[in-house]
Amino acid sequence: MKRLYETILTEGTVINDNVLKVDSFLNHGINPHLMKEIGEEFADRFKDENITKILTLESSGIAPALMTSLVIGCELVFARKRQSLTMIDNLISTTVESYTKKQKNTISVSGDLIKPHDSLLIIDDFLANGQAAKGLIDIAQQAGSSIVGIGIVIEKSFQPGRSELEKQGIRVESLARIASLTNNQVQFEEKTCL
Amino acid sequence: MKRLYETILTEGTVINDNVLKVDSFLNHGINPHLMKEIGEEFADRFKDENITKILTLESSGIAPALMTSLVIGCELVFARKRQSLTMIDNLISTTVESYTKKQKNTISVSGDLIKPHDSLLIIDDFLANGQAAKGLIDIAQQAGSSIVGIGIVIEKSFQPGRSELEKQGIRVESLARIASLTNNQVQFEEKTCL
Repeated sequence: MKRLYETILTEGTVINDNVLKVDSFLNHGINPHLMKEIGEEFADRFKDENITKILTLESSGIAPALMTSLVIGCELVFARKRQSLTMIDNLISTTVESYTKKQKNTISVSGDLIKPHDSLLIIDDFLANGQAAKGLIDIAQQAGSSIVGIGIVIEKSFQPGRSELEKQGIRVESLARIASLTNNQVQFEEKTCL
Repeated sequence: MKRLYETILTEGTVINDNVLKVDSFLNHGINPHLMKEIGEEFADRFKDENITKILTLESSGIAPALMTSLVIGCELVFARKRQSLTMIDNLISTTVESYTKKQKNTISVSGDLIKPHDSLLIIDDFLANGQAAKGLIDIAQQAGSSIVGIGIVIEKSFQPGRSELEKQGIRVESLARIASLTNNQVQFEEKTCL
């Protein structure tokens, strides 16, 4: 994912030692061609798995998850942070604390949409402390579905998300791993990728 | 969009005279192949316009907007209902009342992402009273961008959204137009499409 690394360097803005702003291409503005490459890359990394459904969380997970689901050819379900008038019964819910927004959300998925026979690939835009990922894992487990792994667009590897997920036996695939944001600089884990 | 009509009939659930549940394929679960056809149809309907960017609203607008942006080959921006820690300055905001959720939201777009030279196609999942569409129009106008039109996946044509938008001189293209949801039945405007 050379293009993702390059886009992070050219368009990303380090807000502080913990927060990287990628609003122009990932979670406010979206570059559809980059997103298509992201979907192809996730599909390739999990090509040996029999994925029946993609699970993500609104809103920033939807674009990479949709592109992945299009390449794989399976449906996508996004957990909702707010219930609409049409989410009225058979809900599976859990609580997630947002790292960047400093608030707790109840996230929910209709039990009609994920089932015990489903093999889920979880996709999200960022992995930091792993709160969102753990919430999605909890929902998948409540539904009785199996989880083939988690695909992350940008991992902040200096935060403990990955190790906590791996402790649970979950395979984590991140397309870009950021080792540090100190001194207003993005430092990747794998320098050779550029 | 025969496939969209068929999917509405086979998978949609009429909740009451005003609310159609399409959670399984449009705004909770997403069928990526249907969504791709939706993107191709919007791109075709607006093919004579010089669109520079797609504007939508999180969360349910993102999937059809992303597929449209992929076909057209332009970027996508989704207005946010909640501000993240990275949306810190140069925000364009307006207030929108959600019909299904019975609540008011401030929606915001970074002024860095839509500009006076942009020609915007606005995409959303539903058109009912036109509140979300009017909010997106307001944001586009505050940015000084021009608007080529609005693409809607499902229009409830028994509600006044279309007429209010057309009064403002906005072109509205809906892929499915529902004339009535009374007696627990979906009645389309154009019966010949099936």
